[in-house]
Amino acid sequence: MKELEERIRRDGIVEDGDVLKVDSFLNHQMDVELFRAMGREWARLFAGERINKILTIEASGIGIACVAALEFGVPVVFAKKSRTRNITGDVYHVQVPSFTHGGVSDVIVSKRFLLPTDRLLLIDDFLANGAALEGLTDLAEQAGATVVGAGIAVEKAFQPGGERVRAKGVRVESLARIKSMASGQIEFC
Amino acid sequence: MKELEERIRRDGIVEDGDVLKVDSFLNHQMDVELFRAMGREWARLFAGERINKILTIEASGIGIACVAALEFGVPVVFAKKSRTRNITGDVYHVQVPSFTHGGVSDVIVSKRFLLPTDRLLLIDDFLANGAALEGLTDLAEQAGATVVGAGIAVEKAFQPGGERVRAKGVRVESLARIKSMASGQIEFC
Repeated sequence: MKELEERIRRDGIVEDGDVLKVDSFLNHQMDVELFRAMGREWARLFAGERINKILTIEASGIGIACVAALEFGVPVVFAKKSRTRNITGDVYHVQVPSFTHGGVSDVIVSKRFLLPTDRLLLIDDFLANGAALEGLTDLAEQAGATVVGAGIAVEKAFQPGGERVRAKGVRVESLARIKSMASGQIEFC
Repeated sequence: MKELEERIRRDGIVEDGDVLKVDSFLNHQMDVELFRAMGREWARLFAGERINKILTIEASGIGIACVAALEFGVPVVFAKKSRTRNITGDVYHVQVPSFTHGGVSDVIVSKRFLLPTDRLLLIDDFLANGAALEGLTDLAEQAGATVVGAGIAVEKAFQPGGERVRAKGVRVESLARIKSMASGQIEFC
């Protein structure tokens, strides 16, 4: 998606070779008009797929997912990072390794909000190693729901997550795919 | 706002006398069309106030804030609950007591995204004891930004937060104000 690629070129900041900061428009300060354009693009790509719900993960997926959901006319469910070790039986639960903070997050979603009849679009801001997206896929599988596909804002195509998730048969639509950002130069696929 | 009150009556669940669960439409599963109607109501209430940015706090404020921001034509900044104890100098920082999880959260926002010229609308899903809203007000003050007001979805008017924040001169517009929910019966103000 040209608009997102141009924005990343203009406002993205490359740090330490493989960290891309897009916090001025994507995941700290958020340009909701850009999110609307992204939502329209996913709605075009997944037209006719009878998506009835969007599943995302806190925190930075939520804003993108909610604005995109307006274009689909469906509700959003966000998987929560649990702050207690006390996981009850009324939730689906998965452990997601965190590369930003280290360690593992317990990620949960209420069983009331993921159903076997659901046709889900997964949405997240980044796809790099694939841990968050695989966590969402796992939660959907526990519920017996159908994963129609995943809408990703920025995919670091030089990391293995995208390939691994696609190899499992998940359709992944990333609106900007970064081939390389060596020496601070961002190249898209 | 009638639409939100009716939804709370229909789908809200009162637990233990003073816990209101609205997780089927507000803060776990999210009805984005309802959020759009809420955004329009805040845009009407704050018309002419030259709001240029919305400030919210992760996680459950983000979806409401992003959809509402489309009605204002402004970006959103969300304050982050820090997962490290290592708070650097490039952020504004406040400690917010958590009544749901116990303890205190370190809440931060990048100094790049709150400016003295900003005219802020604060948005959150709940106002009860006022801790989160006071945290956001504090962050805005650190930046020298102007708080035009706060848009709250559900205020528990029988708890002291709303009164305390209003006493500081903040205009608070809560779309549903609950007077009492003793014995499971929800009464609005």
